[in-house]
Amino acid sequence: MDIRFVNARLMTMKDGPTISEGELWVSGNRISYVGPSKSTKQQFDRTIDCHGNVLMPGFKNAHTHSAMTFLRSYADDLNLHDWLYNAIFPLEAKLTKSDVYTLSKLAFAEYVASGITADFDMYYYPEVTAQASIDFGFRTVCLGTVTKMRSSVAEMVESFKKINQKDSLASYRLGFHAEFTTSEEILIELSKAANELKTPIFTHTSETEAEVKGCIERHGCTPPVYFEKLGLYNYGGGGFHCVWLSEEDLQIFKKRGLWAVTCPASNAKLASGTAPIQKMIDMGINLAIGTDGPASNNSLDFFKEMYLVTAFQKLATKDPQAAHPFDILKMATVGGAHAMGLDDADILAKGKLADLIMIDLNKPNMQPINNIPKNIVYAGMTSDVALTMINGKILYENGKFFVDEPIEELYRKANEITQRITK
Amino acid sequence: MDIRFVNARLMTMKDGPTISEGELWVSGNRISYVGPSKSTKQQFDRTIDCHGNVLMPGFKNAHTHSAMTFLRSYADDLNLHDWLYNAIFPLEAKLTKSDVYTLSKLAFAEYVASGITADFDMYYYPEVTAQASIDFGFRTVCLGTVTKMRSSVAEMVESFKKINQKDSLASYRLGFHAEFTTSEEILIELSKAANELKTPIFTHTSETEAEVKGCIERHGCTPPVYFEKLGLYNYGGGGFHCVWLSEEDLQIFKKRGLWAVTCPASNAKLASGTAPIQKMIDMGINLAIGTDGPASNNSLDFFKEMYLVTAFQKLATKDPQAAHPFDILKMATVGGAHAMGLDDADILAKGKLADLIMIDLNKPNMQPINNIPKNIVYAGMTSDVALTMINGKILYENGKFFVDEPIEELYRKANEITQRITK
Repeated sequence: MDIRFVNARLMTMKDGPTISEGELWVSGNRISYVGPSKSTKQQFDRTIDCHGNVLMPGFKNAHTHSAMTFLRSYADDLNLHDWLYNAIFPLEAKLTKSDVYTLSKLAFAEYVASGITADFDMYYYPEVTAQASIDFGFRTVCLGTVTKMRSSVAEMVESFKKINQKDSLASYRLGFHAEFTTSEEILIELSKAANELKTPIFTHTSETEAEVKGCIERHGCTPPVYFEKLGLYNYGGGGFHCVWLSEEDLQIFKKRGLWAVTCPASNAKLASGTAPIQKMIDMGINLAIGTDGPASNNSLDFFKEMYLVTAFQKLATKDPQAAHPFDILKMATVGGAHAMGLDDADILAKGKLADLIMIDLNKPNMQPINNIPKNIVYAGMTSDVALTMINGKILYENGKFFVDEPIEELYRKANEITQRITK
Repeated sequence: MDIRFVNARLMTMKDGPTISEGELWVSGNRISYVGPSKSTKQQFDRTIDCHGNVLMPGFKNAHTHSAMTFLRSYADDLNLHDWLYNAIFPLEAKLTKSDVYTLSKLAFAEYVASGITADFDMYYYPEVTAQASIDFGFRTVCLGTVTKMRSSVAEMVESFKKINQKDSLASYRLGFHAEFTTSEEILIELSKAANELKTPIFTHTSETEAEVKGCIERHGCTPPVYFEKLGLYNYGGGGFHCVWLSEEDLQIFKKRGLWAVTCPASNAKLASGTAPIQKMIDMGINLAIGTDGPASNNSLDFFKEMYLVTAFQKLATKDPQAAHPFDILKMATVGGAHAMGLDDADILAKGKLADLIMIDLNKPNMQPINNIPKNIVYAGMTSDVALTMINGKILYENGKFFVDEPIEELYRKANEITQRITK
């Protein structure tokens, strides 16, 4: 389906968050034109008048565990260790593949409503998540998550080969849960696999102070130093959370071009701490933003997340200029896309994937119009998302979902699953 | 107009955030029944099927400067002092009464969309704000704001007598901008007036470390100690922000039953700091929440504010149990109402004012249903507000405004004003 968006404010993110007036054409799943308004004889299946609203690349949720929707607001007000071992792991063990399929789709619905067009999804049964994303029309980069208790490197290599050959909406990368849930034996095997496949590796990294202290006790160094020694970063990759990075850790991130994915809501709710975002910006470290899973956040709201990145940084550094909104928008779009290997979904430009959103300026919180990019970060909210398109298809428009099954069915199924598992 | 809400989940806030199933009747501007479903011969003008959605008291925005909508996302990334003296004060001086009328209404629209049913509105021209709220149908408690440069105690006493006799939607309380913008002469005059009128006084209090240091240099004590000495608290009142309170300050708040109104988004954005909320909860100090003005926040989103109160507190105390969501909901509803003198708009009960909202649970972020009150604080967002009723009248329903002038007209006028003033 070919779609023409006219009378738009274009924030392509090509040269930062600048705004120009014009139009954008979508042919199939790609953008075929972005620029000033012009006349054309080309036929479109639909022309959408943006009435001056903003078109921009969709947000990229660079760290999440989508299927954890079933535990949203179930186990709150705990620290990471209690939350994970006493509340989360025992209940997760009860999930079936069919549960993961449904619960992932519930998260996808929340993503598209919040202008998120792709996620980096670390969970068990990645083939199931991949199938859910293809059926729903959502773009997912699945991430392996081996621990001492579940999955294996062999399983991950199999998923790597299988999912990366599938429909382009789903892809796969190697990962492991965290240093403290894995053994050195597994990590050595994983390093070998990643070096053979010449592929990056991602993991939870230095999320809490206790995690870093434990790693130093076990291995005599911080998690990033340990991973670097094991050759896990030879083809890049990155870490999720990155709250407690040392100077040496930061240098490794810089040298290897690793991605630090910050998850401020989760880090606050679990009282883990505040990542040194401004320092990483100053050092030129690659940055992206993630919601983390809905059991620790508890929403999947990218506007909340963008605001928190800058708010926490201003508080932590006592500097109101810290974490500038333009940096935040770059992290939220281009940064996330590159972290996840979605180089074709980073900006609005001819030939790029048509993964985009429309921000409605006709909302009280977007008025009057002073500085649109700053306002999106400082005052934007999920209800400002008027339209979400992924792979050239509109999945969400004016509060309605256009996906493969009725949203009410998803709610019903998710409640059934939750009641069965938590009873 | 008499309205019957059936099939509701009732969160009355009478005994905390507990949920029961039932119905609620509105007769005129008051609630005439809240309880289990029952048959009745009474005729209603409209029956609304809530389909299991939540009815709860509206949020009370206990600190704001509504008309500052014109500077939303205009002057960002500055500390309080630079922001106030170099960006805000010079532009505010250009505002006409008619500007304040329109700009206040723009804020009211944002409030009702976010489930806020009353605000504590500190701004110049309170008669204008009062008229705007009456015309719009919004409930406003106007607050005087004398400084060395503008307004006077005599003017405030006049407003006190005039506005408190008007339509019940608008009322008035005494206030002053802050210690550092007022003189001792003014404060002594104000104290005399408040003691004669037997009325509480509110002001910006200990918002920044610099403010407290400055007060100690000028007067040898912190702002609350200084105000207590001047007799300003003899009939109660409270402070906005309350970030840098000393042990002695906290004891004054406790002894006098003063209200500490926290504004986390503004405190973060201006890098002012984090208020000691958990400590105040533990001490039994009266607490409420405010958005502060849209020029420093930059939105008027009560869900953002509730999340930030608890998130900042968990980070500051390193305790994931800090600022429990049930405490947050109490601050957001009952606390705010009592702070503002709106004792009749605090909970859902027979005889109380019909100031209420409906929260739509049929949203991805509200599903599945585990713990509704926690989910409202941790995952709720403005788009979950399905209906906002003030004084028995529905002002907002399913994304549409039912107010005295078209919302698009408000946007148009607000942009005109902004362009004129900031050019």
